[in-house]
Amino acid sequence: MARFLDACYRRPTDVTPVWFMRQAGRYQPEYRALREKYDLLTLLRTPELAVQVTLLPKPLGVDALILFADILLPLVPLGLGLRFVPGKGPVLEHPLRTLDDIARLRPFPIEEGLGFVLDTVRGVRAVEPDLPLIGFAGAPFTLASYAIEGGGSRHYQRTKTLLYRHPDAWTRLMDVLTEVTSAYLRAQVQAGAQAVQVFDSWVGALSPEVYRRAVLPHLQRLFASLADLGVPRIYFSTGTAGWLADLRTLDAEVISIDWRIDLDRAWEQVGGPARVAIQGNLDPLALFAPPEVLAQEVRAVLRRAGGRPGHIFNLGHGILPETDPDQVRRVVDWVHQFDGYTQ
Amino acid sequence: MARFLDACYRRPTDVTPVWFMRQAGRYQPEYRALREKYDLLTLLRTPELAVQVTLLPKPLGVDALILFADILLPLVPLGLGLRFVPGKGPVLEHPLRTLDDIARLRPFPIEEGLGFVLDTVRGVRAVEPDLPLIGFAGAPFTLASYAIEGGGSRHYQRTKTLLYRHPDAWTRLMDVLTEVTSAYLRAQVQAGAQAVQVFDSWVGALSPEVYRRAVLPHLQRLFASLADLGVPRIYFSTGTAGWLADLRTLDAEVISIDWRIDLDRAWEQVGGPARVAIQGNLDPLALFAPPEVLAQEVRAVLRRAGGRPGHIFNLGHGILPETDPDQVRRVVDWVHQFDGYTQ
Repeated sequence: MARFLDACYRRPTDVTPVWFMRQAGRYQPEYRALREKYDLLTLLRTPELAVQVTLLPKPLGVDALILFADILLPLVPLGLGLRFVPGKGPVLEHPLRTLDDIARLRPFPIEEGLGFVLDTVRGVRAVEPDLPLIGFAGAPFTLASYAIEGGGSRHYQRTKTLLYRHPDAWTRLMDVLTEVTSAYLRAQVQAGAQAVQVFDSWVGALSPEVYRRAVLPHLQRLFASLADLGVPRIYFSTGTAGWLADLRTLDAEVISIDWRIDLDRAWEQVGGPARVAIQGNLDPLALFAPPEVLAQEVRAVLRRAGGRPGHIFNLGHGILPETDPDQVRRVVDWVHQFDGYTQ
Repeated sequence: MARFLDACYRRPTDVTPVWFMRQAGRYQPEYRALREKYDLLTLLRTPELAVQVTLLPKPLGVDALILFADILLPLVPLGLGLRFVPGKGPVLEHPLRTLDDIARLRPFPIEEGLGFVLDTVRGVRAVEPDLPLIGFAGAPFTLASYAIEGGGSRHYQRTKTLLYRHPDAWTRLMDVLTEVTSAYLRAQVQAGAQAVQVFDSWVGALSPEVYRRAVLPHLQRLFASLADLGVPRIYFSTGTAGWLADLRTLDAEVISIDWRIDLDRAWEQVGGPARVAIQGNLDPLALFAPPEVLAQEVRAVLRRAGGRPGHIFNLGHGILPETDPDQVRRVVDWVHQFDGYTQ
């Protein structure tokens, strides 16, 4: 059952492995039942509950589990204060608004600030013998954008303004976040995570020039710092179809792409099947299509992967809350049954 | 002073022409003064006022004017009801929520439903002898997404659900919007507009497969229907870096791109300088950088264009309201003074 790990290393597998971003979440009745009893932060911070949620997607037949956590958790020990506001999403109570705010940031001991996440990792590994567990963290840019904007954003006006006007403060902020993220992922692997994914969900707001100058060097350092852990490292980003070729410089086993580019084209740009594995890339909204249309969309992704070793089927972003769980189950079955790789 | 029109047809120009999306708008004190006296819909619907607003950017030294209008105006005679809610943006009072809503849609006579826009075009042409006037309209997908969602959207869940579940209704909706958009742009040109731009601001939410199947054929028809007008046709989209090569099939003189891809790379993908002109592509947020950094960003775009005929300098999307007008003025000057096309 190490189908997922084999694919990360581009080793042949019996069938294409599949898992889903946000595969444990609000689209599941079991999850919603838990959320009626506990608020989100309680679920995230209580290892017994977070273990339970992490395991929820297992009956779907997925080939990997992903830790139930939130990319913003490291901002709490950094002193930014995190609340989840119903209908609005995450809100940081003390966003970074001055250069002093940035100067004051200090990395923290992971076991102290985020020990509950590590306990969740250990808890899942203790009860789940078969499915590999993926740990994860937010990428430095995406964390920085939340830390600066104080929540979600449309234009990333404060973030980009800082980046353009105060490059030194920007570098310091990225340095701290890179250091924290590296230590956090290292601790997750030491606790038992068998792969790690770095989520750069909002980096597609940048231009390729700015990405190369102000983001990529930090990512290169982050990925290099994880090389000795001996687990697959996955870089996920959205909106980056214009500069996928730049991701070749990342020392990552897997590049995870969104749905805004054909998978075969993206795979070539990031280095091709001889160099790197690819993860993706069904539009999460395809799960709202009738089953026969969904089947076509799933097959289209698989055909573009062409059955070459190193494809992990996933969505281009997370499952939406209104998704029908039966549709998710169907996708797993179709991926596992598919054998029509030639057009 | 037909620098802009020459560049649209890839004829050599003395300097690179430049204009800005939303160059007449809230970032200008003169515009804000008008908005204190009139609400947005009144400004849009009163030709004398809309003419005045259209002309506001002239002192900046831009090489073209764009009609002051809103892409959603055609949804009013289509019966959807349009309000602008401060702090929230456009809201449609009667969004398309059933198949019957779509079946009932009927194209309308442009002079009847949108005569005030045509009067604005005539008014600008009557007083402005030098600067070419660009007319515009929303692209069918982008209009459809507003019509279905009832306003802005994050995931386009209703739009994509309709598209996946009811392809016939989707086709009918796109047919009506294509017909209306074609007639509307034709009327603008007949009233005096010297170029037209089609804004597909949100089409980047799709996958390339769905774009090819459910959007591109309608765009092809739209652009072909405008060929006999003898004015440059510009297609603008954002988030489409993954499938720019597909835009080669559009019969358009100019492709306008966002900032999420290097301009030279995008130009090659859409057909290259021998086949099509390119418009763009500075990140609107670069206008928040200190002047010396902004100057570097402007030069980087111009160097990628390489001084080849057929580049129109613009942003990758509209000017944001908080932009300093002096920064906009600087960009115009730098573009006009630039002669460092070789690296």
